[in-house]
Amino acid sequence: MNITLTSGKTITSDAGASILDSLKKAGIFLTSSCGGKGTCGKCRAIIQSGSTDIKSKMKLSKEELDLGYIIACQTFPTEDVTIEIPKESVLTVEGRIDTGKSENLLTLLQSSGADVDPLADRIVLELPPPTLDDNISDLERLKRELTAHGLGCLRVPFRFMSNLANTVRQQDWKITLSTIHSEDCFEITNILAGDEKAPRYGIAVDIGTTTIVVYLIDLADGSLVDVASIYNSQIRFGDDVITRIVNATEHNEMANIHRAVISDINELISVLLASHTIKGDAIDSIVAAGNTTMAHFFLDLDPSAIREEPYIPTANIFPLSHAGELRIKTHKNVPVYVFPCIASYVGGDIVAGVLATGIHKNEDICIFIDVGTNGEIVLGNSEWLMSAACSAGPCFEGSGIKHGMRATDGAIEDIRINAETFDVEIEVIGDNIQPMGICGSGMIDAIAEMFLTGILDQKGKFQSEKTDRVRIGEEGPEFVIHYGKDKDIVLTEPDIENIVRAKAAIYAGFATLLSEVGFTFNDVSKIYIAGGFGKFLDIEKAIIIGLLPELEKEKFEYMGNTSITGAYLCTLSKKLCREAEEISRQMTYLELSVSNSFMDEYVSGLFIPHTNIDAFPGVKKLLEQ
Amino acid sequence: MNITLTSGKTITSDAGASILDSLKKAGIFLTSSCGGKGTCGKCRAIIQSGSTDIKSKMKLSKEELDLGYIIACQTFPTEDVTIEIPKESVLTVEGRIDTGKSENLLTLLQSSGADVDPLADRIVLELPPPTLDDNISDLERLKRELTAHGLGCLRVPFRFMSNLANTVRQQDWKITLSTIHSEDCFEITNILAGDEKAPRYGIAVDIGTTTIVVYLIDLADGSLVDVASIYNSQIRFGDDVITRIVNATEHNEMANIHRAVISDINELISVLLASHTIKGDAIDSIVAAGNTTMAHFFLDLDPSAIREEPYIPTANIFPLSHAGELRIKTHKNVPVYVFPCIASYVGGDIVAGVLATGIHKNEDICIFIDVGTNGEIVLGNSEWLMSAACSAGPCFEGSGIKHGMRATDGAIEDIRINAETFDVEIEVIGDNIQPMGICGSGMIDAIAEMFLTGILDQKGKFQSEKTDRVRIGEEGPEFVIHYGKDKDIVLTEPDIENIVRAKAAIYAGFATLLSEVGFTFNDVSKIYIAGGFGKFLDIEKAIIIGLLPELEKEKFEYMGNTSITGAYLCTLSKKLCREAEEISRQMTYLELSVSNSFMDEYVSGLFIPHTNIDAFPGVKKLLEQ
Repeated sequence: MNITLTSGKTITSDAGASILDSLKKAGIFLTSSCGGKGTCGKCRAIIQSGSTDIKSKMKLSKEELDLGYIIACQTFPTEDVTIEIPKESVLTVEGRIDTGKSENLLTLLQSSGADVDPLADRIVLELPPPTLDDNISDLERLKRELTAHGLGCLRVPFRFMSNLANTVRQQDWKITLSTIHSEDCFEITNILAGDEKAPRYGIAVDIGTTTIVVYLIDLADGSLVDVASIYNSQIRFGDDVITRIVNATEHNEMANIHRAVISDINELISVLLASHTIKGDAIDSIVAAGNTTMAHFFLDLDPSAIREEPYIPTANIFPLSHAGELRIKTHKNVPVYVFPCIASYVGGDIVAGVLATGIHKNEDICIFIDVGTNGEIVLGNSEWLMSAACSAGPCFEGSGIKHGMRATDGAIEDIRINAETFDVEIEVIGDNIQPMGICGSGMIDAIAEMFLTGILDQKGKFQSEKTDRVRIGEEGPEFVIHYGKDKDIVLTEPDIENIVRAKAAIYAGFATLLSEVGFTFNDVSKIYIAGGFGKFLDIEKAIIIGLLPELEKEKFEYMGNTSITGAYLCTLSKKLCREAEEISRQMTYLELSVSNSFMDEYVSGLFIPHTNIDAFPGVKKLLEQ
Repeated sequence: MNITLTSGKTITSDAGASILDSLKKAGIFLTSSCGGKGTCGKCRAIIQSGSTDIKSKMKLSKEELDLGYIIACQTFPTEDVTIEIPKESVLTVEGRIDTGKSENLLTLLQSSGADVDPLADRIVLELPPPTLDDNISDLERLKRELTAHGLGCLRVPFRFMSNLANTVRQQDWKITLSTIHSEDCFEITNILAGDEKAPRYGIAVDIGTTTIVVYLIDLADGSLVDVASIYNSQIRFGDDVITRIVNATEHNEMANIHRAVISDINELISVLLASHTIKGDAIDSIVAAGNTTMAHFFLDLDPSAIREEPYIPTANIFPLSHAGELRIKTHKNVPVYVFPCIASYVGGDIVAGVLATGIHKNEDICIFIDVGTNGEIVLGNSEWLMSAACSAGPCFEGSGIKHGMRATDGAIEDIRINAETFDVEIEVIGDNIQPMGICGSGMIDAIAEMFLTGILDQKGKFQSEKTDRVRIGEEGPEFVIHYGKDKDIVLTEPDIENIVRAKAAIYAGFATLLSEVGFTFNDVSKIYIAGGFGKFLDIEKAIIIGLLPELEKEKFEYMGNTSITGAYLCTLSKKLCREAEEISRQMTYLELSVSNSFMDEYVSGLFIPHTNIDAFPGVKKLLEQ
């Protein structure tokens, strides 16, 4: 039997196998925190055609059942079926990283002035077995040997002790210690069989508001082994951090929101370990970067004061925790390092970004902008760093946009509109895949092209007379980007409004931050852009819609997801960890929400490209052509 | 209705009240870790007469049911009943400490050169509330204030963070921090409402192999508030440490043995807090002293290597742990400090004893001997300390003796035998209580008196012709100490053998240790005796049986339970905590189990008072009289 996906792909279904198992065999992973027991209700799919045996409908609402939703681990095809996998069910695993990507990361590590010197160390020791004449305790024996190795300050947490006596004897006194360097001391985190050659790995996590990405890193050589990602399942508690804080605080959902992110991360880790047949005790460390709210939810810290003036997080620099405390399913003693934050709305993801771009070591003034769910900006150089957050919203990650989606398989990432025929040419992420939605870079392309071809006016309203691709949909005027077999992919006028508000907020952020320190765009030598766009962000089009200022193209550099890159760097380098903490301590934060000049700049930015078209001479020229 | 106890006491039973509840109301506490839910099966009693309603017989074996055992919380009298409470069910609470005892302890603290400066501190802080201009995180605000207070090295464990944001806001930025000084740093352990006058308490625990004692200490003035004690319910896994280790290791009972001691301590703490209406968060610290095996069981550390040559503990100096890790039912962050040990068979109870006696600061050579379950000896002065353990066994605590019991209510503690009539005069602990058994000091009295009156010969055998108090019982010849209404209290020949073996081991320990360092008994200026005897140990009689060497009486000092005294001292003084660690590091340990001279000495000691009667000239003279 076959299972056909709405994306076009067809896979084989073995008799007796659940839909979840068949998908897994074909390398398509659905979220499934219970591991296929039918208890978490996460591996949802929609049956479009074909009949199935359904063992359990638990966790599905009446409405969902009417829409054809099933739990994939509890559903068994009895003939060929066609299914749709909702984006929130998809767990993406790259399978194997191409050498290029891994080499680029290693090059970045070197260019940051760091060697492969992981945050978590291993020390292999051969202890002299005790005798009646040398009968000190196991712990003293260990400490004596470590002192002989020249290890200075050493902390032994109580939880480390539980396996000590057993392991040293089972391993005939040849052991490996995992340690982590924290607060100027080595802390012993785990004890393993003595083996210089045992593989050891680090886990780097980007806890995005919308997407969670996990890197599996080989700590021996620093290579990136694999990548997995998933929609942050906290989304059911709200698209943005504010809604989630409200749900945590006022609707008593704190524990559930914390559990959601932990269970997502557990799934990604378990899929990565399973696909590379890596044992749990080969994991030496977990390094996580996320915005301040995400860090609080991850660590189960009350985020309510983040939302209320004067916007205070519990902490910006977090004490080291360990997997057991957070219920992360590696060995319970694995240390968990969370990236330091700056303030309530400039978090560890931004510190990671600064670390990845190196603007804290550059003598020239640079800008770093992360167009994630929020829109955080850093301005500065090796002498000073200043940051702000401009509440851009999560539209470039697909949220709040009718056919919006992340930059993964099936996303339209590149759009060209013929100025005469208004025909649309699209590029879709993935090989031979039907378009399923539109990602951030596709949205920017679409608006720029619609604006240049006159489909959209300066106010972001459709000029409907030009082409019948502009039509009236459920939510008012919309533009058809792709006529599909099952559904058309459109951008609606509310979508356009969302995107224009987002780009206005970001541009206003740049302008306010610069004027605060008495500089202009001309003083900026480089603008680094991070965010959940596709592989490529078309800088020219981002300038056309007024998201970016009009500067020479070579001043822009698109960096992709710098939060995970920073987490990768810290996993591999104690030195860069210390630099990250230094960045967090040095950087000042400007609160835009109480800034009048920011509000003025924002309102001016609600046009395409801007009320002051003279700031965009190139775009003005294009329009005149 | 009335409940009459076999000890003679009668209490009232309210209609509908369980036997457990009626006993509790009368100030008689039975162990009951489930709090009366009928699930732990610990509050056993034996119905001797009268009828009852039995709600549940769970946890009772067929044999126990036949013997009349009931679970007191599940049993409701329907008429007057008479019950027997087995010693292992009794939890003793002193109720209110007489001022004398508390003052003695305070005097000891002062004479140890220490002030009331508890291991756990409190710091009351008033933080400036955050504003938009002073918007650092809660943790940074706290650290800034602590730095301004001059607090140097400071560690914040991750688990402390969970209540921070909430508490500072609920308390309007006026808070109290609990801290503990460990490894040259202050560690924040808890956060409370800001209140200089809030009562605060420490818990000191003596984890004896046979008995667990808990002190509730007022940390404001150092006074002892109350004492509770209980038989260590690990006894069901063996009377001595070796049997328990075998059960832990070979019969997979480790988790149960750990849980037994934790549940005992939880019961004692909860009864103490309830009787003084103290809230859990008024507890700032827990300090526990016990022998090395008890410390391992308490901390859930594998004790198996303690039993096998070369007898190695996991640790002698233990990292600080916290209540949550050990499932002690105070606030989960309360720090738990375990007394440092010396070696596998000289533990923290002995270090506590040295601390309490101060021999580590005395220029003259002293001996410290703890006649607990094992029999540990320390010899030394302010320059050197040497220790050994002599496997005396637990008979002086009542174990292995037919009518042996701890020195609590109902125990015969003082015995005099008329040399002509052989009538026996006894003193019983408690007011107007029927004798129920015989405690350590009573046993020593009995043997000395029987020996002097010729009832017992030098080999410890009864001379039956002298009095009909010597009779043949189930276990052979026995001496009736007390003719009871329900049962007679006797010492049997196997009892005598046990006691003689124990005293021989202790005396051999003294002799071996002294000869090892080239000294004799004449060089010893003081012998401090600790152990589970009654309030008074009759030194002369202990010399007569050959337990103690024949020295001037003023050289002996009976110290009672020095393990709990040491725990009391450390609870109240950081300085004494550091001294305890220093003692643990400085003291050497002599392994007697592989010493030939110890074996020779032991065999010589199997007579009363000793094979070499010339070492006891005074006893020799008494016999000649």
